[in-house]
Amino acid sequence: MACCGGSLCCQCCCNEGETRTPEELTILGETREDEDEILPRKDYESLDYDRCINEPFLEVLEGLNNKKARKYEAIKWILVFAIGVSTGLTGLFVDFFVRLFTQLKFHLVGQSVEECSENGCLALSLLELLALNMMFIFISSVLVLIEPVAAGSGIPEIKSYLNGVKIPGIVRLRTFVCKVTGVLFAVAGGLFVGKEGPMIHSGAIVGAGLPQFQSITFKKIRFHFPYFRSDRDKRDFVSAGAAAGVAAAFGAPIGGTLFSLEEGSSFWNQALTWKVLFCSMSATFTLNFFRSGINFNKWGSFQLPGLLNFGEFKCVDGDKTCHLWTAVDLAFFVLMGVAGGLLGALFNCINKRLAKYRMRNVHPKARFIRVLESLLVCMVTTLVIFVASVTLGECRDLASSNNNTSTQGSVNEEVNSTIRRFFCYNNTYNDMATLFFNPQEVAIHQLFHQNATFSPVTLSLFFVLYFFLSCWTYGVSVPSGLFVPSLLCGASLGRLVANVLKINFHMQIYSGTFALIGAAAFLGGVVRMTISLTIILIESTNEITYGLPIMITLMVAKWTGDFFNKGIYDIHIHLKGVPLLEWETEVEMDKLTASDIMEPNLTYVYPHTRIQSLVSILRTTVYHAFPVVTENRDNEKEFMKGNILISNNIKFKKSSVLTRAGEQRRRCQSMKSYPSSELRNVCDEQAAVEPAEEGQDILQQMLERRHVPYPNLYPDQSPSEEWTMEERFRSLTFHGLILRSQLVNLLIRGVCYAENQSSASQPRLSHSEMTEDYPRFPDIHDLDLALLNPRMIVDVTPYMNPCPYTVSPNTRISQVFNLFRTMGLRHLPVVNAVGEIVGIITRHNLTHEFLVAKLRQHYITI
Amino acid sequence: MACCGGSLCCQCCCNEGETRTPEELTILGETREDEDEILPRKDYESLDYDRCINEPFLEVLEGLNNKKARKYEAIKWILVFAIGVSTGLTGLFVDFFVRLFTQLKFHLVGQSVEECSENGCLALSLLELLALNMMFIFISSVLVLIEPVAAGSGIPEIKSYLNGVKIPGIVRLRTFVCKVTGVLFAVAGGLFVGKEGPMIHSGAIVGAGLPQFQSITFKKIRFHFPYFRSDRDKRDFVSAGAAAGVAAAFGAPIGGTLFSLEEGSSFWNQALTWKVLFCSMSATFTLNFFRSGINFNKWGSFQLPGLLNFGEFKCVDGDKTCHLWTAVDLAFFVLMGVAGGLLGALFNCINKRLAKYRMRNVHPKARFIRVLESLLVCMVTTLVIFVASVTLGECRDLASSNNNTSTQGSVNEEVNSTIRRFFCYNNTYNDMATLFFNPQEVAIHQLFHQNATFSPVTLSLFFVLYFFLSCWTYGVSVPSGLFVPSLLCGASLGRLVANVLKINFHMQIYSGTFALIGAAAFLGGVVRMTISLTIILIESTNEITYGLPIMITLMVAKWTGDFFNKGIYDIHIHLKGVPLLEWETEVEMDKLTASDIMEPNLTYVYPHTRIQSLVSILRTTVYHAFPVVTENRDNEKEFMKGNILISNNIKFKKSSVLTRAGEQRRRCQSMKSYPSSELRNVCDEQAAVEPAEEGQDILQQMLERRHVPYPNLYPDQSPSEEWTMEERFRSLTFHGLILRSQLVNLLIRGVCYAENQSSASQPRLSHSEMTEDYPRFPDIHDLDLALLNPRMIVDVTPYMNPCPYTVSPNTRISQVFNLFRTMGLRHLPVVNAVGEIVGIITRHNLTHEFLVAKLRQHYITI
Repeated sequence: MACCGGSLCCQCCCNEGETRTPEELTILGETREDEDEILPRKDYESLDYDRCINEPFLEVLEGLNNKKARKYEAIKWILVFAIGVSTGLTGLFVDFFVRLFTQLKFHLVGQSVEECSENGCLALSLLELLALNMMFIFISSVLVLIEPVAAGSGIPEIKSYLNGVKIPGIVRLRTFVCKVTGVLFAVAGGLFVGKEGPMIHSGAIVGAGLPQFQSITFKKIRFHFPYFRSDRDKRDFVSAGAAAGVAAAFGAPIGGTLFSLEEGSSFWNQALTWKVLFCSMSATFTLNFFRSGINFNKWGSFQLPGLLNFGEFKCVDGDKTCHLWTAVDLAFFVLMGVAGGLLGALFNCINKRLAKYRMRNVHPKARFIRVLESLLVCMVTTLVIFVASVTLGECRDLASSNNNTSTQGSVNEEVNSTIRRFFCYNNTYNDMATLFFNPQEVAIHQLFHQNATFSPVTLSLFFVLYFFLSCWTYGVSVPSGLFVPSLLCGASLGRLVANVLKINFHMQIYSGTFALIGAAAFLGGVVRMTISLTIILIESTNEITYGLPIMITLMVAKWTGDFFNKGIYDIHIHLKGVPLLEWETEVEMDKLTASDIMEPNLTYVYPHTRIQSLVSILRTTVYHAFPVVTENRDNEKEFMKGNILISNNIKFKKSSVLTRAGEQRRRCQSMKSYPSSELRNVCDEQAAVEPAEEGQDILQQMLERRHVPYPNLYPDQSPSEEWTMEERFRSLTFHGLILRSQLVNLLIRGVCYAENQSSASQPRLSHSEMTEDYPRFPDIHDLDLALLNPRMIVDVTPYMNPCPYTVSPNTRISQVFNLFRTMGLRHLPVVNAVGEIVGIITRHNLTHEFLVAKLRQHYITI
Repeated sequence: MACCGGSLCCQCCCNEGETRTPEELTILGETREDEDEILPRKDYESLDYDRCINEPFLEVLEGLNNKKARKYEAIKWILVFAIGVSTGLTGLFVDFFVRLFTQLKFHLVGQSVEECSENGCLALSLLELLALNMMFIFISSVLVLIEPVAAGSGIPEIKSYLNGVKIPGIVRLRTFVCKVTGVLFAVAGGLFVGKEGPMIHSGAIVGAGLPQFQSITFKKIRFHFPYFRSDRDKRDFVSAGAAAGVAAAFGAPIGGTLFSLEEGSSFWNQALTWKVLFCSMSATFTLNFFRSGINFNKWGSFQLPGLLNFGEFKCVDGDKTCHLWTAVDLAFFVLMGVAGGLLGALFNCINKRLAKYRMRNVHPKARFIRVLESLLVCMVTTLVIFVASVTLGECRDLASSNNNTSTQGSVNEEVNSTIRRFFCYNNTYNDMATLFFNPQEVAIHQLFHQNATFSPVTLSLFFVLYFFLSCWTYGVSVPSGLFVPSLLCGASLGRLVANVLKINFHMQIYSGTFALIGAAAFLGGVVRMTISLTIILIESTNEITYGLPIMITLMVAKWTGDFFNKGIYDIHIHLKGVPLLEWETEVEMDKLTASDIMEPNLTYVYPHTRIQSLVSILRTTVYHAFPVVTENRDNEKEFMKGNILISNNIKFKKSSVLTRAGEQRRRCQSMKSYPSSELRNVCDEQAAVEPAEEGQDILQQMLERRHVPYPNLYPDQSPSEEWTMEERFRSLTFHGLILRSQLVNLLIRGVCYAENQSSASQPRLSHSEMTEDYPRFPDIHDLDLALLNPRMIVDVTPYMNPCPYTVSPNTRISQVFNLFRTMGLRHLPVVNAVGEIVGIITRHNLTHEFLVAKLRQHYITI
């Protein structure tokens, strides 16, 4: 089967990327979207992790001392604590109602089945189950109709967000409500879905929403620091929230922290990581506290870590020969890793095809079609569960299972209470029903901790049915996690291996470990996460000695799977066309430089620009940022005289060019004003050679001499079609970047000056006025042009980002990529050796697909 | 006592930083060293984490495809595995011999004590113990004399290294041997030192040495990729090694990984972190495998995770009311955190004074004085141990301790076997002797797991004695860790709290948890580590439910302690004058810009320079890197003609200025050469307007027009004292950075051309020739000048780093700092808006002390 899987997989997935011919790929990025829907879409915006330190920000900074900074830090700590607690409570809410509904359902139906004779009464039980399940799924599916991004696990979306891509609606309150309620009903409805992915998404929304919410709705507790209104802070809080989600879902605070680090991809931020860990801890222990209280009535103790936990793996106390695992077992674990990788690749491959099919045939149609699909999946799942439980199970001896485990205390008591008898009498029970006719977490517990009770046939059948059904389910329009189904699938496989080894080869092994490793292998093969998954699984088992086997299994599973296709989350991100940045570029990409991949056609603004030009630029382009430039031209001295606009621009350019000589002079002067300085003599000496005033003149002269062909500007002259290449690509000195939202804000608030006034008369905006509308800034098309005087001039220099990170055109891709990804940039100007901007690099220029196309082009031209 | 501690502490530590007057601080950095020995020293070099992608590197890259890259990746995996295994084996070696020597010693002396009457025979036992201990310490101390950097825990040094500071001798094989053997004897000699810090150091040396060693000694397995010969790779391997060291020491692979992340401070590198985790796992499980095999003769099982482990915390099975901790206990944990922070601060304060005293009075004297000091400490420690054991202990009932714990299996059996009777008869034992007269790990186990057996007086006395002795010991010239002594100290305190609560307030608590929290609080108060320490402790207890209490305790301890002084490692780093970079700058620092802190006095080279100038620059300066620049001057057209050197430089400048127009033309041409491209028409159209050849001319004209006052060069004219400021600070277009080592290498290998030849005739060096001498490059003073023709010209452009990251002079400190620290830079050029270099920022310009001084100066001038 693995063989057949492999070949099918190769057929559909191996040649990913080869579906486009080289010709198509060499076309420049601008014209690629319409060729294949899987190429990164250009309408996703990037989040900006870099701080824009402009004049309004500096004003805020001036009022800031270390005491205020500490207060601000304290608020952050309180906020992450609140995020953790809220996420924990969300988990509690979901868990409580899922338990309630599921218990109710299984109680009703189970009772009716147990009491039934084999005639029509069974059909009645089936109908009862069907009606309940379909009702739940209907509710869940309708909720997703209200907010479509609530579908699926949410991990691809959160991964994209943390990677720096803004996906509309992903962190909204409405999404939160739909997701939380939806997943509750989806799980209660008996679909093969988990609640862990949605928990992570919910946590992320709490993280994004909580700090913003306070500052908007309740005006009274509005912070004096407008820092939280930025992509940077929001993203930090979202990492904390996502980590809290993982922590609550798996009881794995460290795993959660590493999850958000792994996906968050920013630089290692000590203070942030410490807060994220605290947030995760808060979430885990909030959930733990309330669950221990509610379920065991032991308020104050902490006994139930996460929504999903694996119980305690331990040997029976007296048994000295029992080992959880030995060095010999490692070889089997490697083989299971390979199998898990292959099966995971098959799973992903089938799911990808399904998702593509859905995108083409389901999504374009009326929305209720999606609800119908959910109901269909629900019906089939329910039928399979019921029929398999009733007809395919084997009756196993109950005594044999209780025999060895009697000493293991409370865990096994719970396990035993969930055994299903289904027409098995005389102290036996139905093994298939025990797996199918229970909540999934319970089934995982059974596979991990119930000794010698499942027949190989049952396990194989269970695996096959579960595999295909859960594969079909993931992508249906309900909120649905993938962790628990994958774990269950893999655990049954692992248990199968353990049975075979134990019975056919008489090996001394611990079945639970094999089930666990099987679960890890399959899950690893499907999701291909590395560090965070290892640690989540170690924490879920609460057994550090499982570290090595879990890590080796996951490594092997990932490597095997990566041979065929990507992880399921990456596949779905890819299908959505999200321009995700990988961890690093391939080595070969270093054959390209920044100038090979940058966008050379620039739309720019001048430091001082007329409103008329600004409006026309904003209305005719879709760029999110514009470089602020001055032009380098000769032979236009006549423009200088009398034209305020041009001379303002020139003045700005001159003043922005800080020189070493000027800097040194400034330092000397500041030294002289201060006594008892050693440097005073040095400066005096220099001052003697050239007195300050004269020095000022020399500086002036130097500047003028260097820029003898003064930079000159045509602010009123817009680019025209007849321009020659030289005119179109004239040389532009780079001074800063200004965002579309900032420009629109300036226009709306009337920040401008008249030509006959000084630019100092321009009104000043504060930082809070600049960020007031975050995150939804007004559009240029909403602007009433009648209110604006087109001849007025806007001085954008106080509001632009005056010193974004830049790269030189010869910088190699790996360096560009590192800078861009690590610093979480949105726009990276490419500036040449004499300070002229030659292009801009954005996220789209760094996606894998774009780089591959450019590399091919590079090979062809040389 | 805490009160007295607090006041003493305030007196000696609170006013850290205030000891220098503002006047002193405002003096520029250049003249600060001689005023206070604690300011960062300037003779430490930085490690360069940024890749230098120059022409030899590109040649290597050309030959590289994805297959080779995978091979290279595989080698890295094998190497990290090897590092992990070797570190594990090192741990095993230390552990084995420490156990052997200690058992021997305690057996001999213990026997002699037990058998003795109270007369002279006791003195004999004492002498026996003294002789053994002093012999061990003498060996250890002599080993440190051979290699002085082997003294201490090594964590400050590794922290500095991972932070990016090269400390001489720190990762040498000799250091390794001295450290490993030294720590073995230091621990066996009964000093209050741990072996965990030295394990981390040893791991780091293995990491640094292993990949280098293979490539130098065994020529046959020399890699075709000369990548490992760079600071970047070495630092990566050192992180892996240090993580493996932590993993082996505490059985904490995740904690180890986070330790190296926390200290390593580079950006979040997914691939590297995954390897580091694997390395840690290998180390833990290697150690585990061999220890299980050797100690229990259970080869193939994994039962003894780390050198130090805390045993299993669990309630007795039957006891339903027993909880490890409850919500109520958290309040006590917070108070214990405060106490731990205060005591830790006191410890650090005393130790700092001691260290300063040693630096002034011990270190300048003959080296054997240090040996004498070690022997003195050893003597006092031995006396205290012996006298306290014999006279201060109480006889406690042995039955009471065995009563409850009989069910707890093997752990307690081991614990009971280490109980000391010392003159206690009738089934009682001596509690003080049980703590003092055992290896420290055993004493920790006793405090964590032995029920109700230590009197409060004994615990208090033990704490006080241990506190002062271990404080005195840390800093003595033997290899000495601080973790175990701190844990033991704190555990006794925690146990004391537990006793008081249990006996005086009759609370239902688990004493072991309180001992553990006490240990965490004190250790946290001393070392002030955050994330990694939390996780190390959680992993050592193998109990995820301890996460929250440990984290809260550590947080409180750190915050309390930080109120008074820094962590012990930071104090020692500070005392060594290492220019460590913090995690981030304070908010206030953003009032400064790059131009405020940069070094404006530059020594530079030209793209084409005469050997004579190079040699004079290299001999008269100590800089490690030189910017490669061309000058911007007018009025010297006559220099151009006939002077090959100048025209070469000008040509280089022209060719390096890539423009948008030129770039667009290049793209069009490459498009045209390729059929079926949409862009072809666009290009054709443009080409029609201006044919290719003419276009070339226009490009030429544009370039020339823009640079009409051609940059001109005086390569033979060296800066003179009579130069005016204008001349001294002339404007220089920045083209790249070249390292001292690279320049020396070029000179040694005769890379140059004669004036009458073309620069293309210059010999080319390969990447492996450039890096052959790593890490110890030849010095310029070793160069035989007679072999060089001073009139020859060197073209440095193929060997320089053509596109280092740069910042603009107005960039705020937080951005500069982020870039510098995250990318692990060594030199950061400051380049203005027209591409002229105005200064250079190095690590020294970003140290806290320098920034504080600059900020004060800033406040004074405005």
